[in-house]
Amino acid sequence: MKAARYHGKRDIRIETIPDPPPPKSNEVTIDVYWGGICGTDLHEYTAGPLTINTPEKPHGITNDHLPVTFGHEFCGRISALPEGYSGDGPFKVGTPIIVDPRIVCRKCTSCTTGCDNICANWGYIGLNGGGGGGAGFSEKVNVEMRMCHALPDDGSVDLNSVVLCQPLTVGRHALAASGIKDLTGLKVLVLGAGPVGLAVLFNLRAKGVGVGHGGRVFISEPTTKRSQMIRDLGLANLEDIFNPLSTNVAEECRSRTDGKGVDIVFDCAGAEAGMMAGMESLKLRGTYVNIAGWKKPFTVPMQFAFFRELTIKFSLGNDDNDYREVVEDFVAGKFAGAEALITRRLPVEDLAEKGLEELVRNRDDHVKIVATWRKDLLG
Amino acid sequence: MKAARYHGKRDIRIETIPDPPPPKSNEVTIDVYWGGICGTDLHEYTAGPLTINTPEKPHGITNDHLPVTFGHEFCGRISALPEGYSGDGPFKVGTPIIVDPRIVCRKCTSCTTGCDNICANWGYIGLNGGGGGGAGFSEKVNVEMRMCHALPDDGSVDLNSVVLCQPLTVGRHALAASGIKDLTGLKVLVLGAGPVGLAVLFNLRAKGVGVGHGGRVFISEPTTKRSQMIRDLGLANLEDIFNPLSTNVAEECRSRTDGKGVDIVFDCAGAEAGMMAGMESLKLRGTYVNIAGWKKPFTVPMQFAFFRELTIKFSLGNDDNDYREVVEDFVAGKFAGAEALITRRLPVEDLAEKGLEELVRNRDDHVKIVATWRKDLLG
Repeated sequence: MKAARYHGKRDIRIETIPDPPPPKSNEVTIDVYWGGICGTDLHEYTAGPLTINTPEKPHGITNDHLPVTFGHEFCGRISALPEGYSGDGPFKVGTPIIVDPRIVCRKCTSCTTGCDNICANWGYIGLNGGGGGGAGFSEKVNVEMRMCHALPDDGSVDLNSVVLCQPLTVGRHALAASGIKDLTGLKVLVLGAGPVGLAVLFNLRAKGVGVGHGGRVFISEPTTKRSQMIRDLGLANLEDIFNPLSTNVAEECRSRTDGKGVDIVFDCAGAEAGMMAGMESLKLRGTYVNIAGWKKPFTVPMQFAFFRELTIKFSLGNDDNDYREVVEDFVAGKFAGAEALITRRLPVEDLAEKGLEELVRNRDDHVKIVATWRKDLLG
Repeated sequence: MKAARYHGKRDIRIETIPDPPPPKSNEVTIDVYWGGICGTDLHEYTAGPLTINTPEKPHGITNDHLPVTFGHEFCGRISALPEGYSGDGPFKVGTPIIVDPRIVCRKCTSCTTGCDNICANWGYIGLNGGGGGGAGFSEKVNVEMRMCHALPDDGSVDLNSVVLCQPLTVGRHALAASGIKDLTGLKVLVLGAGPVGLAVLFNLRAKGVGVGHGGRVFISEPTTKRSQMIRDLGLANLEDIFNPLSTNVAEECRSRTDGKGVDIVFDCAGAEAGMMAGMESLKLRGTYVNIAGWKKPFTVPMQFAFFRELTIKFSLGNDDNDYREVVEDFVAGKFAGAEALITRRLPVEDLAEKGLEELVRNRDDHVKIVATWRKDLLG
């Protein structure tokens, strides 16, 4: 089969590699339809290998290392079932599938205490090997059945955009990680409307928070393009989208909440100045949820948080539950409009030049670039 | 009446001042029985005025400034009711009272949103004036009825130790601030067994956590004297009390929790090294509650907290609800043994030399020093 494989920094090669072996008893083989480029992929492309394993440090579960087939956001259709598979379950040849690409051990303390998003032996098919040699940017891949979510094949679900489920789960996890069970009617500030911020915004809408629903969503986003996109998608009213470079975000939030401040801040930006603005925007005893990666320890205004009794929460990746919920909501149409997040569709042959390099050059023009080996899908 | 008044750093004077005026319609006059020295008092004595108001900045509600009558932890008996008071309520002349000494405006956003512990116009009788000129270290004081908690006068409650309710409310608030409604069976680490740490430990026991109950309490405390006191009070088993100067607290906690770590850390120490040890002691998605005051912003290991999805909470003072609960539990005998926290009883005349200076010299020998003007109580 054909595959785009990661050999190192700025070194993605289109290669012909063996097809995956026949699926094991707990696996299916999937014909990949669409793979998406994630921020992590871009980071590996420009500065890796980072989480991708080197020959000196193969992955603990897959035992694989670079070169690895690239791409961990993908969907497709089942092309092979295990020998002797009964066929009573949801999986048949042809069933559309969205894949939770995490490699988790199911044995460590994290996995056995319901924190499978923090598996001690964590990895992704498409970054850390596995998948029978394939992943999002190959023609085929083997995946554990328990990581496969079957989708209706009756035309009710847009199979060309279902690949967005993976980034959407990151937003869903952040909502769960807030610890606030009922978000209805709450006032929320999202810092940064990149792919993660947008995932949070779509999940808020799916949960009934924001424009046309209860509550109110404020957004701090410095780029005009993304602000425009948010407005076009109806994710927030124009007057609730603030440019932090020219506006005091905390003052704006307070003046729109009777001086009280917002209930929750989702930090999808990971900037020290943003954190302070976020904390200043919060009501007393409000909740600050950090989803952004922080490259180094830094100074937190403890006195400030103390005298307001703020809660600080962290949200890392997604777990089984997030994936199940997001797929359910996707099938139920609760992420309507999300297809606009796909800003370019490519043949995988062009992944490096028209995908990854395009993101390096014009990152703010894009949210999600997706690629396929199937000419029929490119129209 | 006689009063110990704060004039400035290391300047406490025994003076004769006018009795409080007759109580207003919402007040009572109290004959003070016992006043306790708080850590804040000691801080004001050695380094103040800090929160005590100067003539240039009188308090916003009381309009008072130094010199002020000292002492904000106190109990006593009602000696006068407002003119024409019906007497149908719990308050009669002679009723024993423990006072919630907070000055709160009941008007600001904090007060009107259930966060009266964070009142924007906050103060204490005994630090910021009010009280008709009196407070914990005068013979009499006027207090708003709503801040007075009436106690049974049938011998069932130790009126000589009920003054401990005030510090105990700080521990109670920390339990509430953890956000964890049911603490039963949980594993808890308390950093620092000074007065605040002890208040947390007594509240944990009152809530059914610790020795002889469900769950398990670990303590990090560097002084031998306090460790001994904790053991004598039965607040933790000896093998669960760690000296952080010679022991890896996180390793000890993990080895005693099947490698998982504790559910909650209460930080009553406020040291950067302690915070790291506390976080390392926590289970995945565990909760770190900061009760300690931090003198400056400092570096928080965000990456560490992120990859464990820890929750960071802050607990400041006490609110109405904490006080009500603590008094109820005190009356119900749930703080049995707490009287041992009173390590010295003094006449107020000796407050400075045998109270405050003693704490400067031998702080680790004491938890709570209390003083009274009433010779009959000193036995």
